[in-house]
Amino acid sequence: MAPYRGCLIGRFQPFHRGHRKLAEYVADDVDELVVGIGSADASHTRRNPFTAGERVMMVRKTLEPFDITDYVVPIEDLDRNSVWVSHVQSMAPEFDVAYSNNPLVIRLFSEAGIEVRQTEMFDRDELKGSEIRRQMIDGEDWRQHVPQPVQDVIDEVDGVGRLRDIE
Amino acid sequence: MAPYRGCLIGRFQPFHRGHRKLAEYVADDVDELVVGIGSADASHTRRNPFTAGERVMMVRKTLEPFDITDYVVPIEDLDRNSVWVSHVQSMAPEFDVAYSNNPLVIRLFSEAGIEVRQTEMFDRDELKGSEIRRQMIDGEDWRQHVPQPVQDVIDEVDGVGRLRDIE
Amino acid sequence: MAPYRGCLIGRFQPFHRGHRKLAEYVADDVDELVVGIGSADASHTRRNPFTAGERVMMVRKTLEPFDITDYVVPIEDLDRNSVWVSHVQSMAPEFDVAYSNNPLVIRLFSEAGIEVRQTEMFDRDELKGSEIRRQMIDGEDWRQHVPQPVQDVIDEVDGVGRLRDIE
Amino acid sequence: MAPYRGCLIGRFQPFHRGHRKLAEYVADDVDELVVGIGSADASHTRRNPFTAGERVMMVRKTLEPFDITDYVVPIEDLDRNSVWVSHVQSMAPEFDVAYSNNPLVIRLFSEAGIEVRQTEMFDRDELKGSEIRRQMIDGEDWRQHVPQPVQDVIDEVDGVGRLRDIE
Amino acid sequence: MAPYRGCLIGRFQPFHRGHRKLAEYVADDVDELVVGIGSADASHTRRNPFTAGERVMMVRKTLEPFDITDYVVPIEDLDRNSVWVSHVQSMAPEFDVAYSNNPLVIRLFSEAGIEVRQTEMFDRDELKGSEIRRQMIDGEDWRQHVPQPVQDVIDEVDGVGRLRDIE
Amino acid sequence: MAPYRGCLIGRFQPFHRGHRKLAEYVADDVDELVVGIGSADASHTRRNPFTAGERVMMVRKTLEPFDITDYVVPIEDLDRNSVWVSHVQSMAPEFDVAYSNNPLVIRLFSEAGIEVRQTEMFDRDELKGSEIRRQMIDGEDWRQHVPQPVQDVIDEVDGVGRLRDIE
Repeated sequence: MAPYRGCLIGRFQPFHRGHRKLAEYVADDVDELVVGIGSADASHTRRNPFTAGERVMMVRKTLEPFDITDYVVPIEDLDRNSVWVSHVQSMAPEFDVAYSNNPLVIRLFSEAGIEVRQTEMFDRDELKGSEIRRQMIDGEDWRQHVPQPVQDVIDEVDGVGRLRDIE
Repeated sequence: MAPYRGCLIGRFQPFHRGHRKLAEYVADDVDELVVGIGSADASHTRRNPFTAGERVMMVRKTLEPFDITDYVVPIEDLDRNSVWVSHVQSMAPEFDVAYSNNPLVIRLFSEAGIEVRQTEMFDRDELKGSEIRRQMIDGEDWRQHVPQPVQDVIDEVDGVGRLRDIE
Repeated sequence: MAPYRGCLIGRFQPFHRGHRKLAEYVADDVDELVVGIGSADASHTRRNPFTAGERVMMVRKTLEPFDITDYVVPIEDLDRNSVWVSHVQSMAPEFDVAYSNNPLVIRLFSEAGIEVRQTEMFDRDELKGSEIRRQMIDGEDWRQHVPQPVQDVIDEVDGVGRLRDIE
Repeated sequence: MAPYRGCLIGRFQPFHRGHRKLAEYVADDVDELVVGIGSADASHTRRNPFTAGERVMMVRKTLEPFDITDYVVPIEDLDRNSVWVSHVQSMAPEFDVAYSNNPLVIRLFSEAGIEVRQTEMFDRDELKGSEIRRQMIDGEDWRQHVPQPVQDVIDEVDGVGRLRDIE
Repeated sequence: MAPYRGCLIGRFQPFHRGHRKLAEYVADDVDELVVGIGSADASHTRRNPFTAGERVMMVRKTLEPFDITDYVVPIEDLDRNSVWVSHVQSMAPEFDVAYSNNPLVIRLFSEAGIEVRQTEMFDRDELKGSEIRRQMIDGEDWRQHVPQPVQDVIDEVDGVGRLRDIE
Repeated sequence: MAPYRGCLIGRFQPFHRGHRKLAEYVADDVDELVVGIGSADASHTRRNPFTAGERVMMVRKTLEPFDITDYVVPIEDLDRNSVWVSHVQSMAPEFDVAYSNNPLVIRLFSEAGIEVRQTEMFDRDELKGSEIRRQMIDGEDWRQHVPQPVQDVIDEVDGVGRLRDIE
């Protein structure tokens, strides 16, 4: 029998502790975990500072200790909402349920007849990516909000310097 | 110190035993293994029957028993050779050396100043993807040429039926 | 002799009574009516909630009682103003005059040497699409502003629910 | 109750008597007829000489005498088979069944769970588009193979001259 | 020995006296001058009113009296920051150093290992393009801020009328 | 009065003596010379080995001794014949007449109402680009067929090695 797979979609700029907590929750729920990294073609902007490859590293390294098979795939923007679900399905292993807290993503999966579960409840107490990016720019303590492997990636690529330069 | 990473590039239509043998060889050589799945946006053609997501499954499942951290990333075609290396670099974790037996890929990496190693010697005795696809269409014994997880994926998505229909 | 054709361009999100009044006016003026549905690739956004196909239905059904041959064609955005006129001309039957109240559209047709007539005077008393979309979100009486076939399409695709979800 | 709609997909280079016969057959079968003009962005090549707008005219004018509501929509190529069905669905009014004799189209609709009926049996005795284009180039009697409105469009745009020039 | 080439990057909407002063400075510094016209595919907007071709004329005509070999190349946007440097390199003759005052451009060249010099200090007393465009719209004396050949181009293409129409 | 401009279109892979002879002929005919480098986004293929930037260098350096103002602009492929003329017009300074020996280019300009002159008669005795590329691969004497500056560019970028590698 094919394993039951859940797909977690986000931009992960960066992948933070709320994302990890959510991934843990989903991992309990499914046999295999697909992580789709949205806006994969975007990088070097205030809103999307990290490349897809950098985010793949963040996610894979953070999930490595989990006892679950994971697939981490970049999803480039096509700028056509009406084909976005098919696009995700073509880039990712087949999945049974999607997890997201983005209203547009939820609507698109629903219209396509794919079960989607809202994730807002799981990361309620965590900072959003935009706030973490602001803390990086302003020199505040952003490190406490992201897992160790994510800190390592950000340091390796001089993520803080990049964010400040392009602001 | 950052791990030493090697990047193996191919279309993997499908991922066959020659590819696995090559991955094993590379894995011995590096700390972490990046696998770039080329022409990720292509599928449902005679030359590229499988989607990127299906190929991600083939590769990840085959590499799972290896004792190495791997990253398997789809690489969409941009149809611009001159920016292709940068595109790969943005989708994949940073790597130190690339492996390929495609003359164009080798040339592009070389011009970009990235070390690239030819792989032809490692899969010399293996069938090419085109021959395996022909065997699938003609009902010959293609299964012996691909690892078990790849057979499973092909069966799950009715890959043989798809190939015959679109021929 | 080739019929004299007029082309009416708009996004029609949704096609409302002002648009219908304008189409009636143009229909009196020409032998055949071309309707170009702009931003055809956009959908599921606050500004462009409906797909091209949904808008094709709205327009065709509303124009059906008119005694005129019409052509209703989606026009995808190319994001290059300088080739936009040629793009419209390739997607639509050849036309002699264009109707629009969009300053950019008017300028582009003029620079291309195509006669264009401003339409503002005809829909002066009608609501704009943005206001109708707001009324849909806020539960006000948007139905009075759109023809019956447009109401039917919006109901069939749960247009109000979609707009509220993606807001 | 929503009308039962059938969607006929083709490139229609040009729309010939076999296409018309097929459209008649489908029209008997459904309440409303959607015609999707494929490769809408292609024109001025040996294989795709006519623009989407020219083909829209051919089809609409030929279908006009039919007693059925029709929708004729250009479908641009996205060069991604895996999202093609969603793309068609976004450009066309919602339909219940598709008609095609293209093996790839049939496979893609089937994988998406949409009913598709093969059309080969209906135009068995008709010339193919490629043969009609060859006759136009070689000065043979292509006119007998296309409906009168299609002849008119081809004459109006100097279709024969165009084909010969770009050969 | 290959000549030492400097590349000056900007949108040049329009090319003004500050740009010319900067080009003069760079020309002193290098053997040959490459000018990359960014956002070449944009035109007819408030922010990018002039086509690439119009801007090519502005720059070439202004540089003509300089005693230096120049190359003026349009650079279309790819909307992928991570491949932008490779894209520029493929469209322009090979260059040794880039000049820009755009923080993103500076960061992208730096990450690619290309020397980049900031230009802000050279045009400090000059108006910005946005201010010159405002003056054109408001009927103020914009002519004093642009070289004579640029005035000629703007007059030839009715640049002021275009800007006012599309505002 | 605006100068009379002629536009010479080609892929120039590479720019050879026939092209130079043709440019000389056109230069006699017009006040200013526009050279459009087609398929600018293509490179590193057997048919299009050189980047746009490399070809800009070839052309500019060869034309430098001519006593005429020239504009050398890369023209990326849009893969839409119906908007190609507008695209060229947006990238190039406005021109009065085009020169080409490509049947498709001639047809597209003619349909757009732009005067186009065939160039075949001028380079009748010269080798074609495809033959020169073959000679480069086979180690024959290709140098006699291209101007000195073109030889320099090809040597500088190891053009012969590139062609042989990617064959």
